[in-house]
Amino acid sequence: MTPKHPSESLTVLTDLVLPSETNHINNLFGGELLARMDRAASIAAQRHSRNISVTASVNHVAFTKAILLGSVVTIEAKVSRAFKTSMEVYIDVWVEDRNSGVKTKANEAIYTFVAVDEKGTPVEVAQIIPETDLEKQRYDAALRRKQLSLVLAGKMKPEEATELKALFM
Amino acid sequence: MTPKHPSESLTVLTDLVLPSETNHINNLFGGELLARMDRAASIAAQRHSRNISVTASVNHVAFTKAILLGSVVTIEAKVSRAFKTSMEVYIDVWVEDRNSGVKTKANEAIYTFVAVDEKGTPVEVAQIIPETDLEKQRYDAALRRKQLSLVLAGKMKPEEATELKALFM
Amino acid sequence: MTPKHPSESLTVLTDLVLPSETNHINNLFGGELLARMDRAASIAAQRHSRNISVTASVNHVAFTKAILLGSVVTIEAKVSRAFKTSMEVYIDVWVEDRNSGVKTKANEAIYTFVAVDEKGTPVEVAQIIPETDLEKQRYDAALRRKQLSLVLAGKMKPEEATELKALFM
Amino acid sequence: MTPKHPSESLTVLTDLVLPSETNHINNLFGGELLARMDRAASIAAQRHSRNISVTASVNHVAFTKAILLGSVVTIEAKVSRAFKTSMEVYIDVWVEDRNSGVKTKANEAIYTFVAVDEKGTPVEVAQIIPETDLEKQRYDAALRRKQLSLVLAGKMKPEEATELKALFM
Amino acid sequence: MTPKHPSESLTVLTDLVLPSETNHINNLFGGELLARMDRAASIAAQRHSRNISVTASVNHVAFTKAILLGSVVTIEAKVSRAFKTSMEVYIDVWVEDRNSGVKTKANEAIYTFVAVDEKGTPVEVAQIIPETDLEKQRYDAALRRKQLSLVLAGKMKPEEATELKALFM
Amino acid sequence: MTPKHPSESLTVLTDLVLPSETNHINNLFGGELLARMDRAASIAAQRHSRNISVTASVNHVAFTKAILLGSVVTIEAKVSRAFKTSMEVYIDVWVEDRNSGVKTKANEAIYTFVAVDEKGTPVEVAQIIPETDLEKQRYDAALRRKQLSLVLAGKMKPEEATELKALFM
Repeated sequence: MTPKHPSESLTVLTDLVLPSETNHINNLFGGELLARMDRAASIAAQRHSRNISVTASVNHVAFTKAILLGSVVTIEAKVSRAFKTSMEVYIDVWVEDRNSGVKTKANEAIYTFVAVDEKGTPVEVAQIIPETDLEKQRYDAALRRKQLSLVLAGKMKPEEATELKALFM
Repeated sequence: MTPKHPSESLTVLTDLVLPSETNHINNLFGGELLARMDRAASIAAQRHSRNISVTASVNHVAFTKAILLGSVVTIEAKVSRAFKTSMEVYIDVWVEDRNSGVKTKANEAIYTFVAVDEKGTPVEVAQIIPETDLEKQRYDAALRRKQLSLVLAGKMKPEEATELKALFM
Repeated sequence: MTPKHPSESLTVLTDLVLPSETNHINNLFGGELLARMDRAASIAAQRHSRNISVTASVNHVAFTKAILLGSVVTIEAKVSRAFKTSMEVYIDVWVEDRNSGVKTKANEAIYTFVAVDEKGTPVEVAQIIPETDLEKQRYDAALRRKQLSLVLAGKMKPEEATELKALFM
Repeated sequence: MTPKHPSESLTVLTDLVLPSETNHINNLFGGELLARMDRAASIAAQRHSRNISVTASVNHVAFTKAILLGSVVTIEAKVSRAFKTSMEVYIDVWVEDRNSGVKTKANEAIYTFVAVDEKGTPVEVAQIIPETDLEKQRYDAALRRKQLSLVLAGKMKPEEATELKALFM
Repeated sequence: MTPKHPSESLTVLTDLVLPSETNHINNLFGGELLARMDRAASIAAQRHSRNISVTASVNHVAFTKAILLGSVVTIEAKVSRAFKTSMEVYIDVWVEDRNSGVKTKANEAIYTFVAVDEKGTPVEVAQIIPETDLEKQRYDAALRRKQLSLVLAGKMKPEEATELKALFM
Repeated sequence: MTPKHPSESLTVLTDLVLPSETNHINNLFGGELLARMDRAASIAAQRHSRNISVTASVNHVAFTKAILLGSVVTIEAKVSRAFKTSMEVYIDVWVEDRNSGVKTKANEAIYTFVAVDEKGTPVEVAQIIPETDLEKQRYDAALRRKQLSLVLAGKMKPEEATELKALFM
């Protein structure tokens, strides 16, 4: 399969924050943002794999910035690294101030998807060739994240996760 | 503040999986499950803190089991440990087979919430006293997870995360 | 078929009241509550019958207490009595004050469901053996309600509804 | 206050049945129909009272006919009788066959609403003068239903409900 | 095929404006109104053709009046003219003041639908015989609109659109 | 006010077509597409004007291509021309085939928005300087469309709409 660049799966979802998506203090629910990011990321995974792609896992997500009712939220998702049948999708979330037009980074998140056929059986996906510096950096880190994921799932012994282990030495 | 038991914040959300929440192969979208878990967990955090509670982070979540259209999904959330203004909420997700009535574990997830006042300023929360064995085990592990979270956010040096480090030695 | 206890079908649906579910004065629409109760009750009926269960009727429902935007509403549904192919489901609705944590009874409602197969043909259901005092009381009253329902539908003559008639003598 | 005719509050809500409103066997959920009827009926009550109108109770509703996905459902609601601050709204539901165009009666329901001001305090409403035979018949029966409602709520002794009692003699 | 009158396809959709359908200044989103009009108009087209009807085009729509949160909006749609397989549907939108009960015209819109079979192939529809003066006037203008539409789509040369051309001479 | 380029308001909304947005033959409802386009276009207008922007009109829209359930739909909106307080927004809609990845043009639409302050009063907006050939072509045509719009609204006499009139000569 011909490898692809992250930019080929870039998916942009710009939308407003509506009242039924906010809590008592008019901030977007964390869960709503998680769901929107999943929709954008699943499209990116589908664009990369040309197959149905189902969410396999969500990496640690930190919500550092409240997003207000009526904000314009832009979600950018692209595949950062592909493994055999799975893909890591890196998601950047931006919030835009209506008056100044200034965009601020609101979140980053990393989801993993598995490409499947109509019966739900995993199918192989094309590999990724990163281009920009940021893409290369995310590509490298994806391996460490996969190891952490395997360790947390009890599928890899911590001492075998060499790249991850190095972090703590 | 009087400490509380995890059971005091137990929140149960049982609901059906509807067509607009499923993908091409009739499985619940990962993002929809993330959103439902957030709603249940935010109520558990609110019940513990008696304050508005906003999502601060989502721990690593693995989707190991597809959840079919029309399934009955039960989400159980309770506060597993409280820190100064934040609470870790542990979520168990069960799927029920209509014919046999057998419930299967579909997911586990861990969300962190911060209690805030009407202006969004963090406020102190009651501590947790775990009761059952499972609650004690989750209570202990919560500290390691907090360290991992601080390390990943660059707010703690890996070598200072003593409990976490021990895992890799 | 082995009879079952009401507790075996207990279904709990805890959720928030969102802005799109409230009227001009920020109270939950009666219709939204009716819909949520129907979802919880249909799951209880399905859990009892292990079959698809369709709403056959809704008993008289009184809305005595306004439920405010942002409230936490808990719906508890369990099968109170089973007839040949139909089941009466008793629903209790609680509203919780965020600050004090006090739960108040907001509503009671009684729905009837019929168990059906994939073609929509009614199928037989297990009988109910009530356990607690409240369950026994609701089990007994269910017969009077069925008679009232038959009378109102013109399927039973008022004078034959002996249990019901006794109420007015 | 000048009395009004039922026709002055007539409210018609025609809409399609969408996939997210149906169960496993492609029938409209009972709860969804209850919610739509509540929306139509609350508009009728508001048109009669010229005030916000909140659902006070729902009379016994029987679902005798399954409504299929994709059907056109027409809900017609009008105030059948007014009391001091409350109004009974009578609702007729029709389902239309796409090929033949034949409309069939799918349901009847009776909701009661209370007119309130912005603070939620009940306010007086205009009386009803029925015109057609059907309107007159529903107007008369409304009194018996009010008595039944008071008896069921424990606010009237069964033996005082003279009109209702007559039914069982 | 027996011709029909516009009144035979009259479809009325009365509903409230909810918070998730409004913008920052509490006005109904134009897009929501366009979607509601499409639902009503598609039912009118289906009632006329007794077939599935898909939106073919939307004529110029002007939003001259803001519609406030909580308003009662009434949409009336009826087929104004039929061509071979397509139908023009004329839509009138009214907004009602809660206190005075006065209805004001908020919008007019014209949608075109094509009747299709289950495979999506266009099928022939009955012709229209207008009855009232307004219906006759709209029936006549429908031909000019069809010409304009063909001209804009590049399927008719401007100089051949005789009726339309007359307007500019 | 400093003029802006169309690219500065470019808004991209990529999303899936869900079951509750489709009709009997699994095609996206025209009305849903109109609503999505309105959301994207209103964000583009807001990005250009740095003010709340309300829909003023929708130009003729033709639906030439059915959009299937499960499709990925990409909406691209940018301001094509600005007048005193109003902006024309040009919208391109693309549908993507999952297997081949080929994007096909599904629709074009033109909406007009007015920038307003918090009270709903129109405010002046920056002018547009088109850059690409397509932007220039759309910029020029915008004037003819405005004339047509004024003619249709009866605010300009057909014979004064010089640019438009030229089309028919």
